[in-house]
Amino acid sequence: MTVGTMKKLLCGVDLGGTKLSAGLFSRDGRQIDRLEINDHVDKDNDGVTEAIIGLVKGIQSKNKIQDSDLLGIGICMAAHIRFDEGLVIKTSNFKIPFKNYPMRAKVQAHFDVPVILDNDANAQAYGEFIFGAGRGRKNVVFMTVSSGIGSGIIIDEKLLRGVTGTAGEIGHTITQSESDQRCTCGNRGCLMAQASGIFFPSLFQKKLDEGKSSVINVDDVSTINGKTIAEGFRRGDEICTEIFYESARMIGIGVYNIFQLLNPEAVIIGGGLINLGEKYIEEVRRTFRSYARDMMVDPMEILLAELKGDSGLIGAATLILERR
Amino acid sequence: MTVGTMKKLLCGVDLGGTKLSAGLFSRDGRQIDRLEINDHVDKDNDGVTEAIIGLVKGIQSKNKIQDSDLLGIGICMAAHIRFDEGLVIKTSNFKIPFKNYPMRAKVQAHFDVPVILDNDANAQAYGEFIFGAGRGRKNVVFMTVSSGIGSGIIIDEKLLRGVTGTAGEIGHTITQSESDQRCTCGNRGCLMAQASGIFFPSLFQKKLDEGKSSVINVDDVSTINGKTIAEGFRRGDEICTEIFYESARMIGIGVYNIFQLLNPEAVIIGGGLINLGEKYIEEVRRTFRSYARDMMVDPMEILLAELKGDSGLIGAATLILERR
Repeated sequence: MTVGTMKKLLCGVDLGGTKLSAGLFSRDGRQIDRLEINDHVDKDNDGVTEAIIGLVKGIQSKNKIQDSDLLGIGICMAAHIRFDEGLVIKTSNFKIPFKNYPMRAKVQAHFDVPVILDNDANAQAYGEFIFGAGRGRKNVVFMTVSSGIGSGIIIDEKLLRGVTGTAGEIGHTITQSESDQRCTCGNRGCLMAQASGIFFPSLFQKKLDEGKSSVINVDDVSTINGKTIAEGFRRGDEICTEIFYESARMIGIGVYNIFQLLNPEAVIIGGGLINLGEKYIEEVRRTFRSYARDMMVDPMEILLAELKGDSGLIGAATLILERR
Repeated sequence: MTVGTMKKLLCGVDLGGTKLSAGLFSRDGRQIDRLEINDHVDKDNDGVTEAIIGLVKGIQSKNKIQDSDLLGIGICMAAHIRFDEGLVIKTSNFKIPFKNYPMRAKVQAHFDVPVILDNDANAQAYGEFIFGAGRGRKNVVFMTVSSGIGSGIIIDEKLLRGVTGTAGEIGHTITQSESDQRCTCGNRGCLMAQASGIFFPSLFQKKLDEGKSSVINVDDVSTINGKTIAEGFRRGDEICTEIFYESARMIGIGVYNIFQLLNPEAVIIGGGLINLGEKYIEEVRRTFRSYARDMMVDPMEILLAELKGDSGLIGAATLILERR
């Protein structure tokens, strides 16, 4: 690799339902610039794609950067992605949903450097692997726990995408087959339905219905989120404390299942729920250890994600660095 | 690759608690010879290893084969194996258990061709990948369902072993976290404890205790196995029919979890319980489909293993063919 290549920049794009951002990064992960827009939300599929192209062209011209100064452009979004073909299979968080939309080709037509398209969990996983808690390792799994649960699996320094590109959907693995809690996917017993933020309202309501008490003043149970649970936990609230520990326990079980199936060096936990604090992570670790016991030969670490806030953006940029 | 290399033979060794076998195979999977002994069972670790060496030397001299006529020797056994170092971490089915025993090095010292050591599920998985139901694919998972449950994961034509070498232990993933059924590992809620043969007696007893009836004449519930369940199912027995479908359903859930996490082309089911018949496999497939529904973009096949009987032996031999 020439010095010229080493000096090239990484461009990342994070496409969300409410926010579209682009960033320029040096090869060592330093952010050089960042642009963000929100007016893509009402656009159709082609309109969103044009917004991406415009944002990248914008950050290029603002920084006097040619295509030849970039190593490539990585785009991530919350979607099922057919990775090999750069197709958005489907989305659930856009006003006008994408369906089998050839986004990578449409963006690629405007740039003379490689364009990569992947889902946000894979991008965040690769970002943590290159610049975050996974640095220097070869086999790590990144698990994001927030409103939903997803993961990105890195085997031998490469993302495991599977045949379609949808591997890593740990949130929809069944961990409690007899559960009556229905997931957004329609199944019962998904890890996600027992541990992630989007289900805190229904878990809360269920405990109220069971006659349990709460000191939390909730006019509208549907507004309950991680912050509510964290506050209630701090105040010793019965229901919040139960949800806090039950969620952590299920995440610990998810981590344990990853251990048994994939035997990685480490599992990195990211996403909004890690803000529930050290006691939450402690309970995740305690649960994992209580299941793994002497079946764990080499220690498997449970680490906290290190890339904050813009983890999707820098993650998307690092996709360019993946060996293919 | 020279023609000479193509003509070299594969040697496989399958080390079990009651049976030790060695086989010679052509590169296209044809069995040339096979030897088997049983008098290794009372020996200590070094004694068992000497029995392996003797058996391979024996099959060589019987067939007038030099080391240079072999591509290598693959050994498999039911054990936790530290693959990179060729260490038997521990065993549970030998009178004198192995513990951190450097078997590969001890065998390697006697042969001028590569010796590979891996666990039996990985060997069977690789055998199915090379010569069985997985032929021509790149990403498949082999799941063996008999007294216990294990798996071998093939990603991009290579076995996924993980950091220690113990990846693929799907039998100990938690699929029913609130279950009171305790697994041999000590945990509750393992897939294995709800679906595999070793738990049929306790599942049977539990249903008797619940007041359910059985036409099966069982003097000793502990003798109940797959054959009993298959016979009872054929005769319309209530308890056997329930266990039959519950086991198949849990295997279907295990297959579904593999789909969500790894997104492979196919899952190959092997092991004794596939002898429960077509209705069992149908229920596995039905359960899988009922969970996967529209989340499955590319079809994932559920196939039956094709290598019968000596699947461990030919599987061990194919380990030699794995790209490293």
